[in-house]
Amino acid sequence: MRHPLLAPDLRELVADREEKVLRDFFASHHPAAAAELIDDLEPADAQYVLNLLSGRARSEIFSYLDPPLQDGIAQLMDRGALAALVSAMSHDERADLITRLPEERTQQILPLLAQAEREDIRRLTAYKESTAGAVMTSDYATVPAELTAAAAIERLRHEAPDRETIYYCYVVDEHRRLMGFVSLKNLILAPPGRRVADIMQTEVISSVVDEDQEVTAGKLMEYDLLALPIVDHENRLVGIVTHDDVADVIVEEATEDVYRMAGVGPLEDSYLRTPFLTMWGKRSFWLAVLFVGEFLTMTALVSYEDAFKKFPGLVLFIPLIISAGGNCGSQSATIITRALALGEVSPANWFRVVWHEVLMGASLGLALGAIGFLRALLTPEHALGGIAVHQIAIVVATGVAVVVVCGNLVGATLPLILKRLGLDPALMSNPFVASLVDVTGIVAYFAIAEAFLM
Amino acid sequence: MRHPLLAPDLRELVADREEKVLRDFFASHHPAAAAELIDDLEPADAQYVLNLLSGRARSEIFSYLDPPLQDGIAQLMDRGALAALVSAMSHDERADLITRLPEERTQQILPLLAQAEREDIRRLTAYKESTAGAVMTSDYATVPAELTAAAAIERLRHEAPDRETIYYCYVVDEHRRLMGFVSLKNLILAPPGRRVADIMQTEVISSVVDEDQEVTAGKLMEYDLLALPIVDHENRLVGIVTHDDVADVIVEEATEDVYRMAGVGPLEDSYLRTPFLTMWGKRSFWLAVLFVGEFLTMTALVSYEDAFKKFPGLVLFIPLIISAGGNCGSQSATIITRALALGEVSPANWFRVVWHEVLMGASLGLALGAIGFLRALLTPEHALGGIAVHQIAIVVATGVAVVVVCGNLVGATLPLILKRLGLDPALMSNPFVASLVDVTGIVAYFAIAEAFLM
Repeated sequence: MRHPLLAPDLRELVADREEKVLRDFFASHHPAAAAELIDDLEPADAQYVLNLLSGRARSEIFSYLDPPLQDGIAQLMDRGALAALVSAMSHDERADLITRLPEERTQQILPLLAQAEREDIRRLTAYKESTAGAVMTSDYATVPAELTAAAAIERLRHEAPDRETIYYCYVVDEHRRLMGFVSLKNLILAPPGRRVADIMQTEVISSVVDEDQEVTAGKLMEYDLLALPIVDHENRLVGIVTHDDVADVIVEEATEDVYRMAGVGPLEDSYLRTPFLTMWGKRSFWLAVLFVGEFLTMTALVSYEDAFKKFPGLVLFIPLIISAGGNCGSQSATIITRALALGEVSPANWFRVVWHEVLMGASLGLALGAIGFLRALLTPEHALGGIAVHQIAIVVATGVAVVVVCGNLVGATLPLILKRLGLDPALMSNPFVASLVDVTGIVAYFAIAEAFLM
Repeated sequence: MRHPLLAPDLRELVADREEKVLRDFFASHHPAAAAELIDDLEPADAQYVLNLLSGRARSEIFSYLDPPLQDGIAQLMDRGALAALVSAMSHDERADLITRLPEERTQQILPLLAQAEREDIRRLTAYKESTAGAVMTSDYATVPAELTAAAAIERLRHEAPDRETIYYCYVVDEHRRLMGFVSLKNLILAPPGRRVADIMQTEVISSVVDEDQEVTAGKLMEYDLLALPIVDHENRLVGIVTHDDVADVIVEEATEDVYRMAGVGPLEDSYLRTPFLTMWGKRSFWLAVLFVGEFLTMTALVSYEDAFKKFPGLVLFIPLIISAGGNCGSQSATIITRALALGEVSPANWFRVVWHEVLMGASLGLALGAIGFLRALLTPEHALGGIAVHQIAIVVATGVAVVVVCGNLVGATLPLILKRLGLDPALMSNPFVASLVDVTGIVAYFAIAEAFLM
């Protein structure tokens, strides 16, 4: 929900220091909508706007801002104000902010926070990126097993404003080990005098802190949960991951996969905010690797130079043939990579997948070979220089068919092999497959041409 | 959470008709986990297992099954049993099932349902695919504005078991127009005697039934909501979309984008369940289009046949040069397509994007050109046939640089143009860009070669 017309107005209001108008404006907007408008401002102006608002509204809107803008504002604030803001933020979001801030800035504000908050930040920032621990929040609600449903609801009533969600409550023993969970719905439906211990579900779906965030997100989705408890290796409850974090994880992982498939290192930031040199680095590395890999096509062509010196007409079909293989390989690589990501296929299925793709490649190869045959028949005779039209048609048709079969097979098996090796199947799949297929295609085409013509 | 070792066991238990073991087994599993195991069975065996379970467990597990298996089982059941199952399913899922069933099957069971259920199914199945209306459920909770918080909670206690969520309740007027919404958290925190009208939020984020599901999903995510109310064009509440539907929408849209980028029509089904001919159709159409498009490379090569007849050494670098442009174009097409999908860039930004990509293309082109220069210097002299090594090095370096700049620009602008035209920017972007770049690359390379050598 962009408001393209409002953004310039907001800038004017800020430039004119229209404090009352700005205050009223933001009071009537949802924090997410307010943040979207502020996202277009420079850090200093954004800070000015935030300072006009109450502490609660300020920290809410701040949480919705783009991370780079958050960082910029955090650098401008005095330490007292920053500490107050951090203290009011939700636990997972303030941990993310602290992770991004320069060490010296963090050291300035940590002493101003309460002991419990410092501890909480220290714990949440300790987990490796892309793990369940790095996404979770420590802001969960617990209830003792011996309370009655009515007493548990009463307790939530007091805890509620501070918790990320009160719709799921967890039951832990004296060592904080996860014993069960109860939803607010269960509590409301239960007879008021019933004990939590008798209502709670004891078969709890949970994740371990160092589990991959994608696996955690998958569990929450599969079981249609609002939140998933995260435990350490002793089954002690350390946090929860909520449904809104999961939506972010899904989008992040899908973007990463798409980038990887095209040979771009994942970006930490949005397109327009990524510095030029960072983007250059993410792109040039893989481009150079692919470029060097493509040197193999030269080696292949050198070994067939007699063929195309004698029959220059063969050259006309090189891009056509190798691109057919590359396109087909990209298709199968994409389909298999996505099927692996969605858990529809696993390396254990490899035989079925490979067999399926051999048949698919063969039938696609026949179709494209037939089109290639017809097109080659139409080649102007002077351009063929010595090859009969029916000969080139047969060579092109066979070449296309063979290349498409190879391309399809390479595209389908490479992601399976990468997955088997414990690597990300999306890694470089499409251009890498295309490069491999280019070399295969050249060899196949010229081998067929030599067999027919020489 | 696959249980690869359990699947064969389950088949054995079914084959041996071990009713008691099967009943106990499924009683101790979450419906989602049970469904995942049943997903591996044939429809007849799956039906046998479901028949062992109580009506409630049966409909819960059935809802989690893969759609094609649901359809298979629905075909096998007698109409009374199917009607009972449909009646117990959640409103959005039964509407999806009915949409997929053959018309005659639907006509058999509809008369067995209650009038209200028939009406509900008729309404939910009327919306176009991929709209908010097609994803929503009619299973929402409403509360009258004049109730007190305590009375509203009491009312939810009675309605709860039948509602998709009781955590958000909507307030409507006598014409079902959406007046506000109140969360269960708000109700619990409010003084019990306070009226709903005084607690409810009246600025409600909502979607209109015919809005694209991706836009609806984006709103729910942006505002971190559990559910989003869906209204008709008169602002009458007709349904809600819940957070778990949104997760499905995000995954579905990401998969569609990935497929489109690789030139595969979106699949309705998982990889292994898609019939061979359907898959062939989704792939062969775009492959053929690309293949025919690639004919242009032949036309381009024919017009430069004098050059490579005179200097066959030029042929060695054709795949190298066109693939560099193609890879670079795939990168920028992917980056811009994804940035458009995530709303980071819009066609209004085109000038900034194009300028950015011109600079990026130039700096990437320089880097790859330099590598190409060095590699060309190493070409064996006999293979160059008459071209001096330093000449070919200059031609290759310039050719690579120009092709990379063009490829990058084509890749960046094509998605912007498609978006501007109201089409999906992901549509065919990568292979289509590669084909365009192949032609451009050939023309640029040979034009440069002719200028230097002839």
